[in-house]
Amino acid sequence: MVSYEQRESAFLWILDQLQSGEVAVPLVARDFSAEDWAFVFEGIPSDLRMDLWDTLADERKAPILAAMRDDSRNQLLGRLPTEDIELLANTSSTEDLVEIIDVLPRKLAAGLIKKLSPQGRDVIGAALTYDEDQLGRYVNYDVYTVDRSDTIGDILDDLRAQELPDYTDSFLVVDESQHYLGQVDINQLLSADEDAKVIEIAEYVEQVLNADMDLLDASDAVKGSGRSMLPVINKDGRLLGRFSIKDALDVFQEYYDAQVSHMGKVSDEDLFAPVFTSARRRAVWLGINLLTAFAASAVIGVFDQVVAQVVALAVLMPIVASMGGITGSQTLTLTIRGLATGQLAQSNLRALGNKEVLVAFFNGVLWAIVVSVIASIWFDNPLLSIIIAFALVINMLVAAFAGIGIPVLLDRMGIDPALAGSVILTTVTDVVGFFVFLGAAALFLV
Amino acid sequence: MVSYEQRESAFLWILDQLQSGEVAVPLVARDFSAEDWAFVFEGIPSDLRMDLWDTLADERKAPILAAMRDDSRNQLLGRLPTEDIELLANTSSTEDLVEIIDVLPRKLAAGLIKKLSPQGRDVIGAALTYDEDQLGRYVNYDVYTVDRSDTIGDILDDLRAQELPDYTDSFLVVDESQHYLGQVDINQLLSADEDAKVIEIAEYVEQVLNADMDLLDASDAVKGSGRSMLPVINKDGRLLGRFSIKDALDVFQEYYDAQVSHMGKVSDEDLFAPVFTSARRRAVWLGINLLTAFAASAVIGVFDQVVAQVVALAVLMPIVASMGGITGSQTLTLTIRGLATGQLAQSNLRALGNKEVLVAFFNGVLWAIVVSVIASIWFDNPLLSIIIAFALVINMLVAAFAGIGIPVLLDRMGIDPALAGSVILTTVTDVVGFFVFLGAAALFLV
Repeated sequence: MVSYEQRESAFLWILDQLQSGEVAVPLVARDFSAEDWAFVFEGIPSDLRMDLWDTLADERKAPILAAMRDDSRNQLLGRLPTEDIELLANTSSTEDLVEIIDVLPRKLAAGLIKKLSPQGRDVIGAALTYDEDQLGRYVNYDVYTVDRSDTIGDILDDLRAQELPDYTDSFLVVDESQHYLGQVDINQLLSADEDAKVIEIAEYVEQVLNADMDLLDASDAVKGSGRSMLPVINKDGRLLGRFSIKDALDVFQEYYDAQVSHMGKVSDEDLFAPVFTSARRRAVWLGINLLTAFAASAVIGVFDQVVAQVVALAVLMPIVASMGGITGSQTLTLTIRGLATGQLAQSNLRALGNKEVLVAFFNGVLWAIVVSVIASIWFDNPLLSIIIAFALVINMLVAAFAGIGIPVLLDRMGIDPALAGSVILTTVTDVVGFFVFLGAAALFLV
Repeated sequence: MVSYEQRESAFLWILDQLQSGEVAVPLVARDFSAEDWAFVFEGIPSDLRMDLWDTLADERKAPILAAMRDDSRNQLLGRLPTEDIELLANTSSTEDLVEIIDVLPRKLAAGLIKKLSPQGRDVIGAALTYDEDQLGRYVNYDVYTVDRSDTIGDILDDLRAQELPDYTDSFLVVDESQHYLGQVDINQLLSADEDAKVIEIAEYVEQVLNADMDLLDASDAVKGSGRSMLPVINKDGRLLGRFSIKDALDVFQEYYDAQVSHMGKVSDEDLFAPVFTSARRRAVWLGINLLTAFAASAVIGVFDQVVAQVVALAVLMPIVASMGGITGSQTLTLTIRGLATGQLAQSNLRALGNKEVLVAFFNGVLWAIVVSVIASIWFDNPLLSIIIAFALVINMLVAAFAGIGIPVLLDRMGIDPALAGSVILTTVTDVVGFFVFLGAAALFLV
């Protein structure tokens, strides 16, 4: 185990070495966890990663790959020869294999699965029957189970002989066909009679997770349970494994990383993804944005004669659009969060709507006054000042409505509002902003 | 402990009751954790929260307050009479009190502290000497310590008699003046001689956290350690408490929530914050945005005669600005993440810069071709098409540079790039976009 500072300075050292053509690893890296290595790899320009990769012992490779961001893992796997990928079959835990297979092209994945033991193939096969957002795909198989007929003494002897998996705060009791029966905590063991059977003191914890549960809900459940882990069972009540608080933490981090990335109009990508891969992915966001920008341009085009007559309109129109955009994204952000946590429901939507529209109204009036004062000093045209004030208030009110309505509609349609919400919102605030401002000018100003 | 689904449906039921004027709580709520209650309170319109609050037993109140988002806690505390706040002194754990005192006005905080025992006052006082981003303020005091002279047998007896705090995977060994000496895991205890002193088998774990450490670094350290908790010591080597994997999870969630909120140009606020509080906070973001919008307007104002002559410029100019904005925010998002994780350093900045500029160049050329084809069909003005293509490429290249340069500069100045980065970036891409497009038009088109 290395400290945060040790990892940081080892990373910088390795990076400098690689950039000056040397492949060398400081002594402290011998104590690196898979996550430390993943951190290092993600921070190294991608053309230098293979040099470092080749210095790793084979049995370290799979856990490091599994600890990486999806995209970084993807990049690295893409550079490995097929034999190296198939080698991973012998050195990977089931959890790591699922993460690796997830990003492999189908042919490579099939090759890797073929190298597995029949038992391994069964477990992987079962995991892959679950969707990418279901708990069953991410079960932690490193679990300490005890048989219902074991005595307390047996278990204590066993504990003396072996190390417990990380984040183990209880022992899961199963029957001969692996049905989950309950669990015991460690100090229950200590105070029990050594000759008693474990099933006599086992407690059935209500918060058992079902493998078909949503992954984020499962993570919330572990977080709220006060326990380091919860058991995961399948439809038949058989114990598949567990889900630990550390697994939950990883899920939350990935979820938030993706959300932050989407808000920044980028996929959750590798820092040093290849130029063309990166360009291609970002082109999608840019193309969508271009469509919305042309929608706004079309509105301006409708009023081009007004703009030609009163060029101050062209000068001021970005203000109306952008203030609407910000107002809308404020409401949108809150609404998306409320929908994601489940705290926003049919019955409190109206209360949120009332508040958001009032907030937008007050800010609309405030900034309309500020903008119209500045505009009237700048252009000495009182009617123009009134028109921009009017357009600002209208656009900010529309923005508040849209900031709630768009994500709620998307959510009902089964589309993730975090993904599409802000693009649609900006289109609305641009189009409405330009239309109301230029339209009012066309009616009253020329 | 209630399941995720039970909590959700209990929440909806309570919400409906409150909204129809009833105060009633389903039976399942008896098993609610503090976090479940916090979830419920945050989802209830704020004027109805006090009705529910009054139904809670006094000893439940402080943990629920502590589990809430800062802003929600703030709102609720603002509604409580002073006596109720001072009552919290008797019913709160130290961690909960720190969270509560953090958001209280100074006078109320002082009143609350005065009601504490001298010992409690000392601990709280020590916690408050640390900054809001330092670990020392958020130490978890619910820790199982053993004295260096205790025998293994003593400890085992003790374990039989009492429940362990959540997330306890080791017992921390201290001397008579509370200096941290090492720790033992539970199965080390089991296999040791009962008459041996604990200090003989204790291991000094290197990854001890210092109370003056950055809170996010500490959370990273716990996450990477594979342990459920790490000890926290002060400058003198005295054990203050511990920091658990659950504490780390809470820190990450708060951090990401704040980041997502800032990207949406809103503070991390209560879903039902009072209208004026919310309006005031959002006005700040809107005001800053207005400044940048006026900067863009000023640039357009410089070229107003050109725009008056060729009104197609007014129609197309938002496209140049917005494509630059998206390109820049893509690079910005990646750079901010790299700076935050520590994976972006002086020595790999150039590699990132090369890649980002190339990505921007390829996308710039691609979308410049698309836009100029559409523009030439629309306006039948070949020179205009060339000018917009040129402006797009330039603005997208500038955006890539700015997307790296701005956060790196802010970071060196000690300003959080997640907070100010996108506003500055948008100003740059708007100003440069309008200037290059309209400036080139002024030179070549009229």
